Amino acid sequence: MQRLDARDAGFAAAFTALVEARRESDAGVANDVAAIIADVRARGDAALFELTAKFDRIDLATSGIEVSVTEIAAARAQVPAATTAALELAATRIRAFHAAQRPADHDATDAAGVRAGYRWSAVEAAGLYVPGGLASYPSSVLMNAIPAKVAGVERLVMVTPTPAGRLNPLVLVAAELAGVDKVYRIGGAQAVAALAYGTASIAPVDKIVGPGNAWVAEAKRQLYGTVGIDMVAGPSEIVVVSDAKSNPEWVAADLLSQAEHDRTAQSILITDSVQFSEAVEAAVEHQLAALSTEATARASWDAFGAIIIVSDFDAALPLIDRLAPEHIELMVDAPDALFARIRHAGSAFLGRHTPEAAGDYVGGPNHVLPTGRRARFSSGLSVTDFMKRTTFLDCGAAGLAVIGPAAAVLADAEGLPAHANSVRIRL
Amino acid sequence: MQRLDARDAGFAAAFTALVEARRESDAGVANDVAAIIADVRARGDAALFELTAKFDRIDLATSGIEVSVTEIAAARAQVPAATTAALELAATRIRAFHAAQRPADHDATDAAGVRAGYRWSAVEAAGLYVPGGLASYPSSVLMNAIPAKVAGVERLVMVTPTPAGRLNPLVLVAAELAGVDKVYRIGGAQAVAALAYGTASIAPVDKIVGPGNAWVAEAKRQLYGTVGIDMVAGPSEIVVVSDAKSNPEWVAADLLSQAEHDRTAQSILITDSVQFSEAVEAAVEHQLAALSTEATARASWDAFGAIIIVSDFDAALPLIDRLAPEHIELMVDAPDALFARIRHAGSAFLGRHTPEAAGDYVGGPNHVLPTGRRARFSSGLSVTDFMKRTTFLDCGAAGLAVIGPAAAVLADAEGLPAHANSVRIRL
Repeated sequence: MQRLDARDAGFAAAFTALVEARRESDAGVANDVAAIIADVRARGDAALFELTAKFDRIDLATSGIEVSVTEIAAARAQVPAATTAALELAATRIRAFHAAQRPADHDATDAAGVRAGYRWSAVEAAGLYVPGGLASYPSSVLMNAIPAKVAGVERLVMVTPTPAGRLNPLVLVAAELAGVDKVYRIGGAQAVAALAYGTASIAPVDKIVGPGNAWVAEAKRQLYGTVGIDMVAGPSEIVVVSDAKSNPEWVAADLLSQAEHDRTAQSILITDSVQFSEAVEAAVEHQLAALSTEATARASWDAFGAIIIVSDFDAALPLIDRLAPEHIELMVDAPDALFARIRHAGSAFLGRHTPEAAGDYVGGPNHVLPTGRRARFSSGLSVTDFMKRTTFLDCGAAGLAVIGPAAAVLADAEGLPAHANSVRIRL
Repeated sequence: MQRLDARDAGFAAAFTALVEARRESDAGVANDVAAIIADVRARGDAALFELTAKFDRIDLATSGIEVSVTEIAAARAQVPAATTAALELAATRIRAFHAAQRPADHDATDAAGVRAGYRWSAVEAAGLYVPGGLASYPSSVLMNAIPAKVAGVERLVMVTPTPAGRLNPLVLVAAELAGVDKVYRIGGAQAVAALAYGTASIAPVDKIVGPGNAWVAEAKRQLYGTVGIDMVAGPSEIVVVSDAKSNPEWVAADLLSQAEHDRTAQSILITDSVQFSEAVEAAVEHQLAALSTEATARASWDAFGAIIIVSDFDAALPLIDRLAPEHIELMVDAPDALFARIRHAGSAFLGRHTPEAAGDYVGGPNHVLPTGRRARFSSGLSVTDFMKRTTFLDCGAAGLAVIGPAAAVLADAEGLPAHANSVRIRL
């Protein structure tokens, strides 16, 4: 963890280094991924089954590629009732929040008599990638699948690797609650390629979303354009802005909730009190000792954690906008007033009683958010990510008489005579 | 041009070949572009100036990198009044259409007492790439720049290569009309890299939009994630759906307006009348002979043009959705009824008096549209492409008491104890 004080002489340079520190690993998997994609595209199921046998040690010909209704029922029976109830509450709340995001169509005729507008429609088929093993989170299933279903996606399929055949029952229950139509036991770049191009077993989809390891991320990047993808996702991060009135134990808990995600996660406290920051630092230390995720959380906090002291919260604003954090907590007396002045952030958690973890699960807003300063230009996942807008124009003879001549003049000016002709021939 | 008849035995295979035919060139410039980006990132202006001297044969140290007020005034004086008036009409109409797209914020408190919503804000700085030479279109400047300004982008800069120093006055006038803040005489991958990382002369931007050659497209692709980009754009295409009541000359003119763009553009007619299709084909031939863009238009029509005969327009619908065309004209008696049943298209032109070229310039809707079947999952450029949404959550003590326990249960189930702790410590 590093301490910075905005009042110090060397602060600007140290803060720039903090902003620009690269936390993303260049796994150098581009060539391997390109080969896998080409193989699945060319050989379909044959390649998909071979790669799955190699990486996940399962024989899809025996197990079946699709997770069966029986397996899903078994998963349901395995999950404790309290957990299922919590997933149901989460699903209900996420669905309600996202339903309010459905965009409106537009259709208007102007003074020239020209009618124009746009119509929204859903992506027909979408694929959701769910990592296997440790990072297999049912909450992510809900956060990715529910907006797709609210958008009206007809065919929503999920892919997840099942190393040595192991399936996470929570993930299956979440998929069922969210309305996922089919679950396939495949993963890695080969699963992404199968979703993009289709094979005999898997129909192609139009959009692929969901987190994954470096191979999955690279496959999505390479297939961007062939299908839609959600976004480039990097390690998670939080900025907690707190005055000295907050409970330092609460702030420490929030910083650690980020740090436990992975070793490259980043937790930053910005406060106007040196004394408070010291209390938080001490709380982090003693909470760390009690965590089963201590090794990860400590590695993240040691390498990327930061405490920044500011003279007042006005001075924090430009720092926050430079960081454009994925998550920002505002643990101050008037969080709305501060939030109104923040320009770049993925999601904000207002007041002392809104831990980011509440939003990770049951708040309602999506937890798939832009990382690594991408909140400067991008947004969290939403219903419109599973929709597209078709614009339309209807000039009519009268409208074309008004606006057509200008179109022809511009076509002439651009050296496009057939464009001009297509207008003038109707005038 | 190829003729297909949906009633023929071999149609399905031939149509699939048409849909999947690759019209995009793999220029294989990835390594060169990566080297340019690395060079500009490392050496800033020194690299940018050297590369500009090499590719555009101009010395930026002499000319200045920024296009001056004097040069813009000279451009204004050079453009005929009728062209300026047409650009002004276009700008006014594009601005009006896009102003209606500004999204609304959301802020609501639910039955649990939890407040959640989102707030839209503009990207702070955006860069617009404008190709030099033949593809230097003032209409594209308007279509890219106006949505950015409507969104509220504070700093909108334009880059355009000026081979041997030549500037297109129309482009400068369009930039001024659209509210572009600065114009830089740089182009290619080096200009995109300079916009993404910044140099001593050019402040970095958050989003880069606009068309470009293979080098520019590849640079945008490689920098996607460092900055936002608009989309992967391929060759342009149109599908004209027409019954036999349309004037075949009008249809031919529209097909050629697409074909003249470039040799890989694609024009497809879908009609229910063989006789009409023959009249259109003849009209294409004789109109071609009169075009100054004949060579390009003929190459496109010969290689990629198609006429598809269907028994009725119901049979056209699945074909249209497979093609998911950038542009679709519906020259039929009840275009709205047909449009309502089309699922995937970038932009629709309704009725016999709406040539696509009207929409290219003065209709109002954006002409930057998804190509190459990408209308299945993406939309034309809009105001929201220059904005981002920050969600927020405010549980309050009472709200957290209601939803917090479920969050903690899910955190436990996911094996994330610090997440659970950050909630339970407040309960």
